[in-house]
Amino acid sequence: MSLDGFVAGPSQSVENPLGIGGMRLHEWAFALAIFREAHELDGGEINESTRVVEESLANIGATVMGRNMFGGHPGRWDPTKPWTGWWGINPPFHHPVFVLTHHKREPLKLEGGTTFTFVTNGIEAALEQARRAAGGKDVSLAGGARAAQQYLIAGLVDEMEISLVPRLLGSGERLFDGVGDDLRGLELIRVVAAPQVTHLKFAKAIKGAHQ
Amino acid sequence: MSLDGFVAGPSQSVENPLGIGGMRLHEWAFALAIFREAHELDGGEINESTRVVEESLANIGATVMGRNMFGGHPGRWDPTKPWTGWWGINPPFHHPVFVLTHHKREPLKLEGGTTFTFVTNGIEAALEQARRAAGGKDVSLAGGARAAQQYLIAGLVDEMEISLVPRLLGSGERLFDGVGDDLRGLELIRVVAAPQVTHLKFAKAIKGAHQ
Repeated sequence: MSLDGFVAGPSQSVENPLGIGGMRLHEWAFALAIFREAHELDGGEINESTRVVEESLANIGATVMGRNMFGGHPGRWDPTKPWTGWWGINPPFHHPVFVLTHHKREPLKLEGGTTFTFVTNGIEAALEQARRAAGGKDVSLAGGARAAQQYLIAGLVDEMEISLVPRLLGSGERLFDGVGDDLRGLELIRVVAAPQVTHLKFAKAIKGAHQ
Repeated sequence: MSLDGFVAGPSQSVENPLGIGGMRLHEWAFALAIFREAHELDGGEINESTRVVEESLANIGATVMGRNMFGGHPGRWDPTKPWTGWWGINPPFHHPVFVLTHHKREPLKLEGGTTFTFVTNGIEAALEQARRAAGGKDVSLAGGARAAQQYLIAGLVDEMEISLVPRLLGSGERLFDGVGDDLRGLELIRVVAAPQVTHLKFAKAIKGAHQ
């Protein structure tokens, strides 16, 4: 998230899925060895962000994401080609991914253990399917903004990692648009200062802990 | 600033100068001994925020603030009483304060060394007057949002301390409204994690430092 609250720039498109300027929110990640490895690239560095990324990847059995994060609106796709989203033929998830959409579609099985399943009956149904697929592990909510807002409003987010980039976007998609003035029990539990980014981890307070 | 980018809540008024919910952005400060002392109150704690507040108060010779931060729009004042703003008879500044306004008014000298001077010819004139009054010390830009935006856009901010409160306001005044996608050379140089707040200090990069 940018310092002014945006998680994607304006004018998202197939050519520019993060929107104008959105790439600057991810530069800290692209510099990391752990990120580059996951995308089959060499090199990169190890720094304070490494353990945050490790932590965010640990014990994940399934992922939920919005339609835009999978690959944008179907109207933008080339209908003559089988659109596999923005993630290539070997996406970095390696587990079941559930995509929130209004458009029915058969599951899409790609290389490396990633299957995209398209869920058309709402966020709770998607979470329930993801929970079952995760087999006791955690479910990751990957984004984008609209999916995050819906799950936050429904009070279904137990943990939230904000990677705050100290730059402005000025326009685009705001993470907390429409969420109101209530984090639904999420409290800041950890801060990690790293190059180009500050990681803020939130978790639901354990009831009774402050008796 | 709240996690969603607001520095004041909606519906600011003489009764509620921080706007609805705005007080929650200041709870970390009200808990501090150093803050309570400055407002002639006993008690309070010493924690990681203490040195950030000490740093922000050190070497300040003059302050600039917007009209709302002084005491709101003149139309809201009771014209039968001499309005001294929201700061009481002994404001916590103890040095010259320059208020950006469109309404001419004689300077207001209060107890403890604070004089409010009302500047009607723009932000650069106010800064110039404050610089002269500061006598070689720094000039503090106290806020509010609109004053901060004007000085940021003009590239006149050398340092910026964001005290990020991990809560949402949902509406109110956004710090970076209208500033665009450019921090005008300000870079994050220091992060302090403290109870109820994360302090992010920005400063202008020194030219040539990355040769």
